[in-house]
Amino acid sequence: MSDLAPFFEIENAAGDGNTVIVCEHASNDFASTTGGLGLNRDQWQAHIAWDPGALGVAKGLSRALDAPLIRATASRLVYDLNRPPHSQGAMPARSETHDIPGNRALSAHQRLSRTEAHYIPFHSALFALLSRRLASGKPTALITVHSFTPVYFGALREVEFGIIHDVDDRLAQGIAARDTGLITRLNEPYSAADGVAHTLALHATPLGLAHAMLEIRNDLIATPEAQQAMAERLAPVIRGAVEEVL
Amino acid sequence: MSDLAPFFEIENAAGDGNTVIVCEHASNDFASTTGGLGLNRDQWQAHIAWDPGALGVAKGLSRALDAPLIRATASRLVYDLNRPPHSQGAMPARSETHDIPGNRALSAHQRLSRTEAHYIPFHSALFALLSRRLASGKPTALITVHSFTPVYFGALREVEFGIIHDVDDRLAQGIAARDTGLITRLNEPYSAADGVAHTLALHATPLGLAHAMLEIRNDLIATPEAQQAMAERLAPVIRGAVEEVL
Repeated sequence: MSDLAPFFEIENAAGDGNTVIVCEHASNDFASTTGGLGLNRDQWQAHIAWDPGALGVAKGLSRALDAPLIRATASRLVYDLNRPPHSQGAMPARSETHDIPGNRALSAHQRLSRTEAHYIPFHSALFALLSRRLASGKPTALITVHSFTPVYFGALREVEFGIIHDVDDRLAQGIAARDTGLITRLNEPYSAADGVAHTLALHATPLGLAHAMLEIRNDLIATPEAQQAMAERLAPVIRGAVEEVL
Repeated sequence: MSDLAPFFEIENAAGDGNTVIVCEHASNDFASTTGGLGLNRDQWQAHIAWDPGALGVAKGLSRALDAPLIRATASRLVYDLNRPPHSQGAMPARSETHDIPGNRALSAHQRLSRTEAHYIPFHSALFALLSRRLASGKPTALITVHSFTPVYFGALREVEFGIIHDVDDRLAQGIAARDTGLITRLNEPYSAADGVAHTLALHATPLGLAHAMLEIRNDLIATPEAQQAMAERLAPVIRGAVEEVL
């Protein structure tokens, strides 16, 4: 697996805006795995494999804000980049109601191999990108873009737009306070206490960066047009909130 | 500057102990700079340039605990690896009572160049080392080794052994509770609130690692023999405290 190209891409690396966009769950690609981890085609398309629609929104935000975008190019079930290597969730044997056969009984060697192929290169690249901007005196906020399923373990979720933060809540509060026309909640449908804000904890908090994790209900961003419309709806909100805290 | 070899070394990378040792201020080497940043030979030897004695203790601990050791090979005045790139302290223009001529009026390009040569490679290597251990299921605590000057801005410091922590204080408390025969204080002569615990905040806290920053008064570790004796004094204390929290 580690002979392949790195499992991430950076777009608009030199973007001059004051935001860096991250999309850890951008892809449902299983090409690097044997037999797609034993899942069927419906499972490859499902939210357990990726965050449907998130990449389209992230690309739209990257364009609107002239922001660098770093995105995964393999499924979160191969390695969930928003989880540390020793967490159960990094290479989960089960996700919601689905068993993941290819993640059952992974050896230490297999976990190491996936960590070296996915987690270390992705976060090293993001660390270098952020460090270079800070060394150059460029003001920088960190935004991660995710989507969530409207129905989870059979329960309907009313929230449409969740904003999650790690230690510093200023940017998340600033985004939540602005009108997007969406049913908006702070720290829903989950929060940093659930261990879902690893990228923010790893990069934003130690570097003192204003940050937010955006969670958009995926039925609202099911088509490329809806993703672009959502990016256009959120871009001015993020721009205003970021300018307020930088 | 960035054409030279990386400004760090890792010793005992495959060490099987449950601790990783970091020595950010191990070196007073100025070979990568023009004219030693305009300092004189006395200043190159002084605590502003490095943490005298810290490397000898760190090497002794690495041997005693079979711990990987990552250490800087350039002076902290070239780049202070325990500071983020946008902090004044990363490439300080003044340290205690000394002006640092070669750090006066650095351009954004110069700051970027030093960040790329020193900060990014060092912390990327430490991140990869820790991630690989965690992926392999190896229990890991993070210990950084520093020394401090007995006289600072003319005031005498009574404390001999300071133990500093970031968010999780368990390991630091465990070390402080054990008898070393030294005048020991928690979060003295300074604490994470002073921004001196960047390495711990960057690596230990987001990965959930037990951690401590050890600060030893440098008059106690002025010779190789004293450094080895200090390592032998501290090794069983650290071993016991780490085993208690892992």
